[in-house]
Amino acid sequence: MAKPAARSETALIECLRTTLAAGGAGGRPDRVPFGDDMAELTGEGGWLWTVDMLMDGVDFRSTQHDWAQIGRKAMAVNLSDCAAMAVRPAAALCAVALNNRLSLDDAAALVRGAHALGVAYQCPVVGGDTNSWDAPTVISVSIAGRPAPGCRPVRRDGARPGDALYVSGGLGGSLLGRHLTFEPRVTLALELNSRCPPHAMIDISDGLALDLHRMCEASGCAAVLDEAALEQVSHADARQMAARDGRPARDHALFDGEDFELLVAAAPDASAAVLAELRLQRLGSFEAGAGVYRADAAGRRSPVPRAGWEHFR
Amino acid sequence: MAKPAARSETALIECLRTTLAAGGAGGRPDRVPFGDDMAELTGEGGWLWTVDMLMDGVDFRSTQHDWAQIGRKAMAVNLSDCAAMAVRPAAALCAVALNNRLSLDDAAALVRGAHALGVAYQCPVVGGDTNSWDAPTVISVSIAGRPAPGCRPVRRDGARPGDALYVSGGLGGSLLGRHLTFEPRVTLALELNSRCPPHAMIDISDGLALDLHRMCEASGCAAVLDEAALEQVSHADARQMAARDGRPARDHALFDGEDFELLVAAAPDASAAVLAELRLQRLGSFEAGAGVYRADAAGRRSPVPRAGWEHFR
Repeated sequence: MAKPAARSETALIECLRTTLAAGGAGGRPDRVPFGDDMAELTGEGGWLWTVDMLMDGVDFRSTQHDWAQIGRKAMAVNLSDCAAMAVRPAAALCAVALNNRLSLDDAAALVRGAHALGVAYQCPVVGGDTNSWDAPTVISVSIAGRPAPGCRPVRRDGARPGDALYVSGGLGGSLLGRHLTFEPRVTLALELNSRCPPHAMIDISDGLALDLHRMCEASGCAAVLDEAALEQVSHADARQMAARDGRPARDHALFDGEDFELLVAAAPDASAAVLAELRLQRLGSFEAGAGVYRADAAGRRSPVPRAGWEHFR
Repeated sequence: MAKPAARSETALIECLRTTLAAGGAGGRPDRVPFGDDMAELTGEGGWLWTVDMLMDGVDFRSTQHDWAQIGRKAMAVNLSDCAAMAVRPAAALCAVALNNRLSLDDAAALVRGAHALGVAYQCPVVGGDTNSWDAPTVISVSIAGRPAPGCRPVRRDGARPGDALYVSGGLGGSLLGRHLTFEPRVTLALELNSRCPPHAMIDISDGLALDLHRMCEASGCAAVLDEAALEQVSHADARQMAARDGRPARDHALFDGEDFELLVAAAPDASAAVLAELRLQRLGSFEAGAGVYRADAAGRRSPVPRAGWEHFR
């Protein structure tokens, strides 16, 4: 019998977690565990490392978007992984499988788009791999970086009951264009981590609901979203999408994905002044238990499903 | 007018070399230049870094090869890049775009195949990115590593007139199976670099002719292949391919590619005993000038074309 659930990305990642732990990807509790936004390199130096692969027709559409924008996005999603762990990006590799119809100019525009954004974050493209084929174009950017001196990378598994949940910007409807043009929250993350180190952090790539579920699962606690705050952080794009398709703007904020904003678990004694200065918006809190809920003004709770953008469905 | 030559991988890499040098990929003469087998990370620590992307129907055929073998190859080609620079691999990332028809077992076998070979070389898979789509499967493995303590990475641009050219094993006909099963020459490269550091090194991925041309261009000198030695290093697979298609076995050795043997430029005073102990086979020598030639017993020379496996043609 077909088991669609078993084919999900979550199932694959669980299977890999077991497989790979045997060879050294698991290990000491002071090291970043498998499945966070970046992997930690063994040996001194404190390097962290991430990769993201983007495919034509899935993560971008070459029929609509220009190649410089597409290259920019390939770099930006990786920079967002650096932001998620408060890591300073240092250098990038860019590997491409280019559809044969691309011109040399298209290919150069693609890599230039990635490189230009990288340079803006002190993270130039220093190497890569160029290939071509008949199928749609695939781009894989990888970034290595380190936390600022004296700082630790911020993991997703450190949220504790009593922590407050913050978000760095508006959510939902990113497909209207923000998924290509968003600014990765690297500067914000570095400043937050140096001034008021959060307990946990993750970037919203697959949607607030799914990424918050992941944070809660990794941390072993539950999260409660305040419905009024959820309305506040719904992006104008979420409301525009809602007007089009009749679904609540809140659902777009919860499930659309590709916002690339940061979700932050802040300690109860975190400086309210710093959080306000960095324009982090309060969205709810963490508590003992498991799962993600939303609560209305009267305190009535509804579970938020573990849904969003998931590959390998 | 169409300019097929301008669309070649070589043209694209040249274009990128110019683009990327502006942002920091170029630089100091003591650093590995853009376009070598691995890129050098800025900052202390001496990390080097490589990526290779493999595509179904181009670098493997999922209709013929099993997923564990395919995963193994994706790791092996990257380990071969480490060998080419005498770098000890430390950790790998594996990003995949899986065709939707793959089962969870197929996907796990793919990553396990990569991880198992990595572990054999102290280079476990520590993270990655999983995606799925309707197009053929793409795998991108990236490896970070460092030279052995006290050693420098071996670049491709250090060959000098008077150096001897050696190769680590038989060439040609790898499509009969060796392109999947080859052993990356990591151990050989590390031992050679610690006992008798070569002037230059490269791994043969796109064919002896093309990769030797690249080594000569980077180094600013010419190479002459001894025809008798070329016959000696033709693999049994090259002779089997020659028997099938009527082309000389020598041409298969020169142009087939995917041998993943090392090409070594050894100083004139390199220890013959060490080279012999490591079973390196003499193939010719470097001299002033440009280009690659073959010479017969009487010293008559013919140019060897700059041809082989080239993407983005």
